[in-house]
Amino acid sequence: MPFEINNEFIENLESLIERRDDQVIIDLFAEEHTADIAEIIDELSNDDATYLFRLLDSEKTAEALLDIDEDDRARILSKLSEKEIAEHIDELDTDDAADLIGSLSNERQNIVLSNIEDGDHAKDIAELLQYDEDTAGGLMAKELVKVNENWTVPNCVRKMRSQAQEVTRVHSIYVVDNKNVLKGRLSLKDLLVAPASATISEISIPKVDFVNVNDKAEEVARIMQKYDLEAIPVVDSENHLLGRITIDDIVDVIKEEAEKDYQMAAGLTDDVEADDSIIDLTKARLPWLVLGLFGGTAAASIMGGFDEALKNYPELFFFTPLIAAMAGNVGVQSSAIIVQGLAKDNLRGSLLNRMFKEISLALVNGVFLALIVFSLGLLLKYPMKVCSTISISLIIVIIIASLVGTFVPLILHKKGIDPAVATGPFITTCNDIFGIFIFFTIAKLILGF
Amino acid sequence: MPFEINNEFIENLESLIERRDDQVIIDLFAEEHTADIAEIIDELSNDDATYLFRLLDSEKTAEALLDIDEDDRARILSKLSEKEIAEHIDELDTDDAADLIGSLSNERQNIVLSNIEDGDHAKDIAELLQYDEDTAGGLMAKELVKVNENWTVPNCVRKMRSQAQEVTRVHSIYVVDNKNVLKGRLSLKDLLVAPASATISEISIPKVDFVNVNDKAEEVARIMQKYDLEAIPVVDSENHLLGRITIDDIVDVIKEEAEKDYQMAAGLTDDVEADDSIIDLTKARLPWLVLGLFGGTAAASIMGGFDEALKNYPELFFFTPLIAAMAGNVGVQSSAIIVQGLAKDNLRGSLLNRMFKEISLALVNGVFLALIVFSLGLLLKYPMKVCSTISISLIIVIIIASLVGTFVPLILHKKGIDPAVATGPFITTCNDIFGIFIFFTIAKLILGF
Repeated sequence: MPFEINNEFIENLESLIERRDDQVIIDLFAEEHTADIAEIIDELSNDDATYLFRLLDSEKTAEALLDIDEDDRARILSKLSEKEIAEHIDELDTDDAADLIGSLSNERQNIVLSNIEDGDHAKDIAELLQYDEDTAGGLMAKELVKVNENWTVPNCVRKMRSQAQEVTRVHSIYVVDNKNVLKGRLSLKDLLVAPASATISEISIPKVDFVNVNDKAEEVARIMQKYDLEAIPVVDSENHLLGRITIDDIVDVIKEEAEKDYQMAAGLTDDVEADDSIIDLTKARLPWLVLGLFGGTAAASIMGGFDEALKNYPELFFFTPLIAAMAGNVGVQSSAIIVQGLAKDNLRGSLLNRMFKEISLALVNGVFLALIVFSLGLLLKYPMKVCSTISISLIIVIIIASLVGTFVPLILHKKGIDPAVATGPFITTCNDIFGIFIFFTIAKLILGF
Repeated sequence: MPFEINNEFIENLESLIERRDDQVIIDLFAEEHTADIAEIIDELSNDDATYLFRLLDSEKTAEALLDIDEDDRARILSKLSEKEIAEHIDELDTDDAADLIGSLSNERQNIVLSNIEDGDHAKDIAELLQYDEDTAGGLMAKELVKVNENWTVPNCVRKMRSQAQEVTRVHSIYVVDNKNVLKGRLSLKDLLVAPASATISEISIPKVDFVNVNDKAEEVARIMQKYDLEAIPVVDSENHLLGRITIDDIVDVIKEEAEKDYQMAAGLTDDVEADDSIIDLTKARLPWLVLGLFGGTAAASIMGGFDEALKNYPELFFFTPLIAAMAGNVGVQSSAIIVQGLAKDNLRGSLLNRMFKEISLALVNGVFLALIVFSLGLLLKYPMKVCSTISISLIIVIIIASLVGTFVPLILHKKGIDPAVATGPFITTCNDIFGIFIFFTIAKLILGF
């Protein structure tokens, strides 16, 4: 069942486009799914893609335009006229339409909107364009099925039929009063089995979850997941029903959040993909590498300050990568657990308890690892004193690194900064420097060089 | 609107439980949402939690039992009788019911199933228990609305009413033939507006996405996301309709996958949370740390082999943490981009092209970073020759590290191993060792110690 693009298909399509063999192309796409069209378009040059968007029916291509890579979309939109964009917008739900033209200049947005045939559709989209994309308002669509609490069942079914024509997926039916204030919801099941004489207020369910139009996207995602909702109504501060958010948009929010955290942990600043340009990839990667470079140079300077140990205890210098790596790894582990706990909102208990736990955990891990490194050191025929120094330092470095890894993200979170910043290269670099400094300080205390 | 648990509430509840003040407790939970009940229960001791599950109506607590922490659930299930578990199962959809009792011993499963009042429900659950939980069969529910292609519209609406009673969310209506073979789907909209004389086959949509019962959960997630589906029917190899999977289960799959990759990148083996026991946390963290320890010891041995450089070029040894850190960071960046590309299934182009691109990218980054480290070295008054050595080695180390980071996950993926294994400590440790070996080899070639 899954569709696979192959090179043959793309090459064939490219030569068809070159020959302007329009009817064959149209037939080729007759049965394609919109998500597959997007995948095909991602493989084409922007000129060929633009040609396809002009040639194919916008009913087919509108959603594909939304699914393709953001950079390609911007370039294709810049080639299409405002009228051509408006034709695509006509086919989209309001939330998708607002996403599509949100990146255009204000001027182009207005021209596109004035080219949309359905005036109500254009007005709804213009309203959605006002909201920040990271809020409930930025996620919601205006399409929904709502009924007045004073209607009777047959009247309701009649009105719903016309509303349902415009709504791709019905999900919930919302109940409002004469002033459009959200009063509850109606289950399709209850409507299917209700007697004709009932009014809506008699069969509606007053308990309804909702979010405010200004709530953050992540908060909406959290609520919808927690309460297992497939759609949630959006209201303003006076509880007027403004729109609704569906689970498919939340899936995107969840994936984007997870990707952002993952990239942050891997030391990637921007949202990049393997197929992006070398410049984009460099922009995402270089900042963290420069940070690591300064960290490494700082570590080198610290070691330079202990150069009197070089003569008698060269083994200490051989073990600095080990100390740095352990400090880095422990820090990343601790911070990752905290960042996930914060994201899932399941961190409880006092800071003091958490500190005790981290120290105990680090002690257990540290002693075990110290014993291994001690044995390995003896195996490599290092002096006993050096082996002890390395082992003892390792325990202390692990404790400090796990405390840094635990509390840096907690502090950032308290200060309103994304704690995910503290995972990956940042924590690794800090812990490298701390680790090496602690290592040599303890070595000096024990070995007295 | 979001519900917040506070300590006061929990303490009050605990003393109510201690006093066995049953009616007050029941009233307290009268208005609680099931997801909130789960959060409250996560805060209680297992004994108190078990008491609550016995006291409250299973209609209220069944889903909460599914939502609570896995370890707590196992302990609570061990305290409840099979009859009490069966009462909870009665309230759950088949997929949730199978998840709930899937962890019990076969013997207990059978006793629970025999205690379920509704025989069909028990049979459906028993069927679902056969499937691997990571497959479509493990995700699907038996509850769905299906209609026969030969029915008329009024007959269909009548039959649907009784089916809909049992289905929490209608989503799609599936059309089957007399042999239960999936033939298409029916939109509620079309049904609402269809003339009474029509038969289902006239208004049904023959194009319907589906998955096979043995398809992997991740594959199902990929298809549902790509085609923006809220539910997908599951069939056997002869296209018989067996069940359906809804998007809320897929949201869980997506989140679990993202968490797994994130934890792998952070060097955590098991799915752990900050509040798990020290033993569980140690089990998740220690293996990767031991790996790092062996890597670090290997690096120390390599450096020991170059100890003739200690006298004239001690600075080389000060810079090993920098070289190791850069090799590690570059490797993690490259592997993270590949792992995400594989997960999103958007890596295209030949391996040769990818190699060229990685080398170009590493060159751009490497030369830039080498210039910085060269200037920093001069600033620290290191000999020009040493600065050149460090800079040139850094460029080569970055190229090798990025190639390792790119191709190790690709090779693992080809061999059917989860490429996420290659992110985090594994790639860091490999690159530490490679990096230090390359660094000293090049230093020896240039400086000739």
